[in-house]
Amino acid sequence: MPKLSNRVARLNEDGSDGWEVFYRARAMVRDGQQVTELTIGEHDITTDPTILEAMHRAARAGHTGYASVPGTDALRETIADRVQARTGVPTTRENVLVTPGGQAALFAAHMAACTPGDAALFVDPYYATYPGTIRAASAHPVAIRTRAERGFLPDPAEVHRLAADFRATSLLVNTPNNPTGAVYPRLTLEALASVVQARDMWLLSDEVYDTQVWQGSHLSPRALPGMARRTLVIGSLSKSHAMTGSRIGWLVGPEDAIGSLIDLATCTTYGVPGYIQDAAVFALSQGESAEQAVAEPFHRRRQIILDALEKQDIVGVIPSQGAMYLMLDIRKTGLSGRDFAERLLDQHRIAVMPGESFGRSAAGHIRVALTVEDDRLWEAVHTLCDFAKGLADA
Amino acid sequence: MPKLSNRVARLNEDGSDGWEVFYRARAMVRDGQQVTELTIGEHDITTDPTILEAMHRAARAGHTGYASVPGTDALRETIADRVQARTGVPTTRENVLVTPGGQAALFAAHMAACTPGDAALFVDPYYATYPGTIRAASAHPVAIRTRAERGFLPDPAEVHRLAADFRATSLLVNTPNNPTGAVYPRLTLEALASVVQARDMWLLSDEVYDTQVWQGSHLSPRALPGMARRTLVIGSLSKSHAMTGSRIGWLVGPEDAIGSLIDLATCTTYGVPGYIQDAAVFALSQGESAEQAVAEPFHRRRQIILDALEKQDIVGVIPSQGAMYLMLDIRKTGLSGRDFAERLLDQHRIAVMPGESFGRSAAGHIRVALTVEDDRLWEAVHTLCDFAKGLADA
Repeated sequence: MPKLSNRVARLNEDGSDGWEVFYRARAMVRDGQQVTELTIGEHDITTDPTILEAMHRAARAGHTGYASVPGTDALRETIADRVQARTGVPTTRENVLVTPGGQAALFAAHMAACTPGDAALFVDPYYATYPGTIRAASAHPVAIRTRAERGFLPDPAEVHRLAADFRATSLLVNTPNNPTGAVYPRLTLEALASVVQARDMWLLSDEVYDTQVWQGSHLSPRALPGMARRTLVIGSLSKSHAMTGSRIGWLVGPEDAIGSLIDLATCTTYGVPGYIQDAAVFALSQGESAEQAVAEPFHRRRQIILDALEKQDIVGVIPSQGAMYLMLDIRKTGLSGRDFAERLLDQHRIAVMPGESFGRSAAGHIRVALTVEDDRLWEAVHTLCDFAKGLADA
Repeated sequence: MPKLSNRVARLNEDGSDGWEVFYRARAMVRDGQQVTELTIGEHDITTDPTILEAMHRAARAGHTGYASVPGTDALRETIADRVQARTGVPTTRENVLVTPGGQAALFAAHMAACTPGDAALFVDPYYATYPGTIRAASAHPVAIRTRAERGFLPDPAEVHRLAADFRATSLLVNTPNNPTGAVYPRLTLEALASVVQARDMWLLSDEVYDTQVWQGSHLSPRALPGMARRTLVIGSLSKSHAMTGSRIGWLVGPEDAIGSLIDLATCTTYGVPGYIQDAAVFALSQGESAEQAVAEPFHRRRQIILDALEKQDIVGVIPSQGAMYLMLDIRKTGLSGRDFAERLLDQHRIAVMPGESFGRSAAGHIRVALTVEDDRLWEAVHTLCDFAKGLADA
């Protein structure tokens, strides 16, 4: 076999680990074992049947040929209207590119912002694909370390230092945050915006959890003064409408950048199925109550865990303000997140993600996804706390 | 706005032109004018309702969450079985990556074969996205010129010279060919395989028209001795099953390469909708007669044009053996393909693609897509021949 390109050969060299727990749990389920899976960000519901009916109607009506590469006019306008209503920033369909999912939008944003060899900043802990996505774009990933004690928020002075040292061309932020649940406050975003402006960088803003905010409110950094011209926003229907499998997302940004990204899409994906776009228009037209119905279980389950943690002092919790996860601090057990997760799975058939799966900053933590029914989650978190206490007492 | 990356800024610098004719025809149709569009490779039928029903069943049954990134086991196995049956090459699901369409497969293949800065060879005339796709992968596109007089087949000695001069890491071939309709003979493919082996290159084989062969037979170069380990085959259901809008395709290649391409897919697309994959399994299980039913109109219409051309000697035809197009030689009119197409559209409301849209080798030609009903095509080709005669006589 001839040599593979450097970029694909090196895609996974960041060495974040702990995904073995996830794969082992999946294998146990396949073998017929009962496992409580609190691992990945997948709803425990399927896509609403009315959305699937809208999709089928569109397909049966003949929307099965090539759709326009930038997205249908109807979906681009629906997304533009939604973004403008939520942020106040003037937005038209010329600011919108429809993509086959949020991950494709994230990749395209780095392809546009970074010339091969450029440094791209991202915040640690991070969603698992971030460094690989940056490497896939032949850019150099530079992690911004954060601390649990500061709510995993990046320090703007540190960001400025790294941006200058590495001559970075982009900064990727994610609020509400996966895996930490942090919702970045206005002051943090303003300070990061200043860095990005001072260094003439792109801000890439992953906002796929923007309908899942439990405390405070979501601020899109594109709405800050002067930022619309240097921000690319990644959006998706995956989390807001339980449409993870439909692979439908978008990028919102300056018209010129979107124009170039359309050229890129012509060469990388050639558009998104028209019937899925029609289903997306239907889904987005159902209003906020439909989105709240999808989000509400996570809000409720977050409270179940917070209540359970109140009654003990071994497992700590990072103040989670959004998204479908909680990051728990298990350092008092003396174990790494990975060892804790491995033993919890072996001894109690409960699967959680080691913090180490999301970078170095979340070592000694575990991420719990709020994706099983309430009573099962209640039982799991109590078992988890007892297990942690046993370890700490030992 | 900060600077965009070099790769997206330069995506369209190859300067193939003539797409204005296509866009102008589309605008005329939108304005309510009657235009016979013989431009792009889109069937005049929609996807078969039984396939759409299979998709809806899968979605309603709950296949709406994240599908496995490499593709479902069922679809990977179905594709592997199909490829093995058609080529004789042992193929398992580990040799298959499902992609969101053939274009995504084409891009991924270049991402895997080329490190940024590497040269990638492709044959001129070419499908419009080829040079942009290579540039999107930050590689350097090198065109292999061909001649109408040799059926637009590449000269292996020329390919070897270019491969050596540019130290190319990949060669892209497309048979049956868009836009020329050429089906590469065994001798040509064997000679190209020798070049690729001698230079330790990847062969990227775009075979999306493999169910549309009117003369001779399709040979997948992956089946040549020693080639399975250095060939990535691009496949798709777009043309074979009139599923262009469903964006469902695949790559077939060596297991190790597919493993790396799965890592790449995790960072660029994160999989393909599960219900579309289920629909694809259904479509591929309908057997050859279903595929022949989709292909047959193009075979029939090709004959309509060949019959019309028999009766005159101004417009020449390149011996087309496959795909849904015919490449016509209009050099006797004294016009460029572009001028001919512009005038034909203005004077007769017939839209064809200038050969120049597909590179320099097809100058003085036009490409006719066989995508309108038979009697309308019959009328259009006779008008076209009369128009050409008028020009030649003038």
